[in-house]
Amino acid sequence: MSKIKITVWNEYRHERHNEEVKAIYPDGIHMAIANYLNTQEDMEATTAVLDEPEHGLTEEVLEQTDVLLWWGHLAHNEVSDEVVERVRQKVLDGMGLIVLHSGHNSKIFEALMGTNTGALKWRDDGEKERIWVIEPGHPIAKGLGEYIEIPKEEMYGERFEIPAPDELIFISWFEGGEVFRSGCCYKRGQGNIFYFRPGHETFPVYHQPEVLQVISNSVRWAAKSERVKVTYGRVAPLEPVH
Amino acid sequence: MSKIKITVWNEYRHERHNEEVKAIYPDGIHMAIANYLNTQEDMEATTAVLDEPEHGLTEEVLEQTDVLLWWGHLAHNEVSDEVVERVRQKVLDGMGLIVLHSGHNSKIFEALMGTNTGALKWRDDGEKERIWVIEPGHPIAKGLGEYIEIPKEEMYGERFEIPAPDELIFISWFEGGEVFRSGCCYKRGQGNIFYFRPGHETFPVYHQPEVLQVISNSVRWAAKSERVKVTYGRVAPLEPVH
Amino acid sequence: MSKIKITVWNEYRHERHNEEVKAIYPDGIHMAIANYLNTQEDMEATTAVLDEPEHGLTEEVLEQTDVLLWWGHLAHNEVSDEVVERVRQKVLDGMGLIVLHSGHNSKIFEALMGTNTGALKWRDDGEKERIWVIEPGHPIAKGLGEYIEIPKEEMYGERFEIPAPDELIFISWFEGGEVFRSGCCYKRGQGNIFYFRPGHETFPVYHQPEVLQVISNSVRWAAKSERVKVTYGRVAPLEPVH
Amino acid sequence: MSKIKITVWNEYRHERHNEEVKAIYPDGIHMAIANYLNTQEDMEATTAVLDEPEHGLTEEVLEQTDVLLWWGHLAHNEVSDEVVERVRQKVLDGMGLIVLHSGHNSKIFEALMGTNTGALKWRDDGEKERIWVIEPGHPIAKGLGEYIEIPKEEMYGERFEIPAPDELIFISWFEGGEVFRSGCCYKRGQGNIFYFRPGHETFPVYHQPEVLQVISNSVRWAAKSERVKVTYGRVAPLEPVH
Repeated sequence: MSKIKITVWNEYRHERHNEEVKAIYPDGIHMAIANYLNTQEDMEATTAVLDEPEHGLTEEVLEQTDVLLWWGHLAHNEVSDEVVERVRQKVLDGMGLIVLHSGHNSKIFEALMGTNTGALKWRDDGEKERIWVIEPGHPIAKGLGEYIEIPKEEMYGERFEIPAPDELIFISWFEGGEVFRSGCCYKRGQGNIFYFRPGHETFPVYHQPEVLQVISNSVRWAAKSERVKVTYGRVAPLEPVH
Repeated sequence: MSKIKITVWNEYRHERHNEEVKAIYPDGIHMAIANYLNTQEDMEATTAVLDEPEHGLTEEVLEQTDVLLWWGHLAHNEVSDEVVERVRQKVLDGMGLIVLHSGHNSKIFEALMGTNTGALKWRDDGEKERIWVIEPGHPIAKGLGEYIEIPKEEMYGERFEIPAPDELIFISWFEGGEVFRSGCCYKRGQGNIFYFRPGHETFPVYHQPEVLQVISNSVRWAAKSERVKVTYGRVAPLEPVH
Repeated sequence: MSKIKITVWNEYRHERHNEEVKAIYPDGIHMAIANYLNTQEDMEATTAVLDEPEHGLTEEVLEQTDVLLWWGHLAHNEVSDEVVERVRQKVLDGMGLIVLHSGHNSKIFEALMGTNTGALKWRDDGEKERIWVIEPGHPIAKGLGEYIEIPKEEMYGERFEIPAPDELIFISWFEGGEVFRSGCCYKRGQGNIFYFRPGHETFPVYHQPEVLQVISNSVRWAAKSERVKVTYGRVAPLEPVH
Repeated sequence: MSKIKITVWNEYRHERHNEEVKAIYPDGIHMAIANYLNTQEDMEATTAVLDEPEHGLTEEVLEQTDVLLWWGHLAHNEVSDEVVERVRQKVLDGMGLIVLHSGHNSKIFEALMGTNTGALKWRDDGEKERIWVIEPGHPIAKGLGEYIEIPKEEMYGERFEIPAPDELIFISWFEGGEVFRSGCCYKRGQGNIFYFRPGHETFPVYHQPEVLQVISNSVRWAAKSERVKVTYGRVAPLEPVH
């Protein structure tokens, strides 16, 4: 069985400029996630970051990618519109996309959703988050308990301006009194998209086993597989037209 | 009761340059639809066209619009990105949007859906279309029979690259052998969006009573009403955070 | 304009046998809700209770009902299967149904949903509930703020075994650490169904204005209107079959 | 890798009493399907029929079943309510269910959907059906072309009284002028349910490779996997309640 080819994309700024973040992710969030994914027998992960040419997301790289993961925060606007459009077409063509945490405000997520996905409530006081499993039969929840508890996290609160998810897998409870749709599945074109909320850079969230479990589950769920070849445009009738 | 304020937008090119189309819609598709809507007691319709300044869709016009209807075909690319973004924000803020026929390929519909909404099969042989009501309890189907028959229409066939509709109201059968999701409801932000398939410019489709009935039904369904005021951004906790 | 005809159904046991509950709802939960609904210009509410013949839900009563509200708790099993089936057919035929609080475990809700709708977590410690508006553009949220706070309520927690709602309007946050899908819209047959979580009998929840606002909003949303007449069974072809 | 354990259930009446049907399926529809599934490396199929004790669907059989297929037509009412409820609970607990053709009117499908799933239009004139793929990226469509053509089939036409599918995969075009939602995915409890339209007993539909392909695809999609263990009932708070 061939492996799922994954590209983990990261803005990679906090980890280079902020000592607190660097202490948690010395090689960057992308490497923490890719290293974990490479422990999975059925996966093969590489990375790409903002400051590489074409942000590391050339046509060739994307052509070899079954699932793309996306983490960004400070520099969404530095991502070129051309690369965003290239990624969007690949997703519509069947590449999986996992959008993590502050990636909700990325150009690519907004372009695929059509709404102001940056619009939500937030607070970075480092409070407790409890992520409840709403769909225990879904493959993205595989291996979890009834909830995931993250001791300290940034809060994201509703109203989150997203299209109603095709499937809602997780809802978060926050110590400070808010709730959030934390695990959202979408199908767009032939691609599968999953938004997963946790992962503020100042907390070691991507070292927590249940969070990593969700990430690898979602990669398997989103993986590009053989699709039906569809044709568009003018066609001759299949039946006689009178 | 105050009336629903409607702006019917039309590209208005075919009707000026093509004698066949002019014969069917001497004042343009927009006027045919607006005149009909103005026969409804609860509606007040005006029009806007591509060749007006800002395509007739200034901030002031949109501010006074509860529901915008959109017909375009030849000149989607002449619509300015700035106006598209302005309309998109109004929809997300609660303005209703009815996208008609070839408007599927408009910038505004693609921007709100996130997919390549131009991708579908088509054929303009003037064949029979039978639009089946799938959700007979939906307000958009009010007053119809079990189906609408259009004697001669352009065919649109699946696969149509749209997000799965939040509600699917109509499915079309075509003489030449295809099917199509012809009535699709979406909620995006606080706005209601309805895509309605029929309306090729060379056939008198917008003179057919059942088609007009669907249009006025959908206007009522999509009308902007009083919404919950939502705030975004950094917030203080509602409960003590430890 | 004709008024919406409402029947508020209540088990009406707690209020007769428990002094604490009687003090809050001296005439029963059904009367508290019906009295409120009768203050609305466009509504006309009557009541029915378990211990009436046929539970007060005769064919004649249902025939005159646009929207039925349902509150039950102790005696779900005393509701006759025949009446449940009669109500189910009326809903499928277009009657609206609002299921309140512990009505989640009623025979009628389970019959219409197909799942074990009694399955959820609960705790009646009288804790704070904050009901967040997830869809601020939905008519059921009209007139609300960003959330409703209920000072003391019974907790219901996920996993709640329901089909994914057609529209999810509210999510609750509970002081004790749980979340819940508290406002769920369904379309079944030609009928609209809304499940609304709050309303434990030992707290004055149905005296709280925002809760009542949601109830009247949902009645308007669910109200039976003119539907498309559908025929079933063997039919002749509409086109020649070769 | 362990195989998917499948039970193919069939009413098995037509094939024993009708020579025309017997000629097509000498060992019954269930054997035709099970034999095909047993050619798949990852599957292991057995059968059960109405006239066996407990219709062949004992607790033990269901306990060993990952996916159950259901074909019935003449004798829906002979299926015992006890077995229907047993199957329903297994589906809610995670067993996959594939409902075929006239199984739309079975007790088990109606019980899980909550609507009158028997309600649809039909005609058995043996006309052409063209099943269009609406979601080409879905695993149930894997390996297909843009449509499946069945030369002679019974027609089923909309309005079909089902809940809106969680995912709509196929729409059928019929020669006689109707359309139908022919491939419908549902999640109920922890189980996956797929309704697939084709399969009238007087035509050799289950010998057609594309139809069989859809059946094996749907089995893989629906297969019971490791689920999250959920607890219900009274729970202690996870956070201090004041």
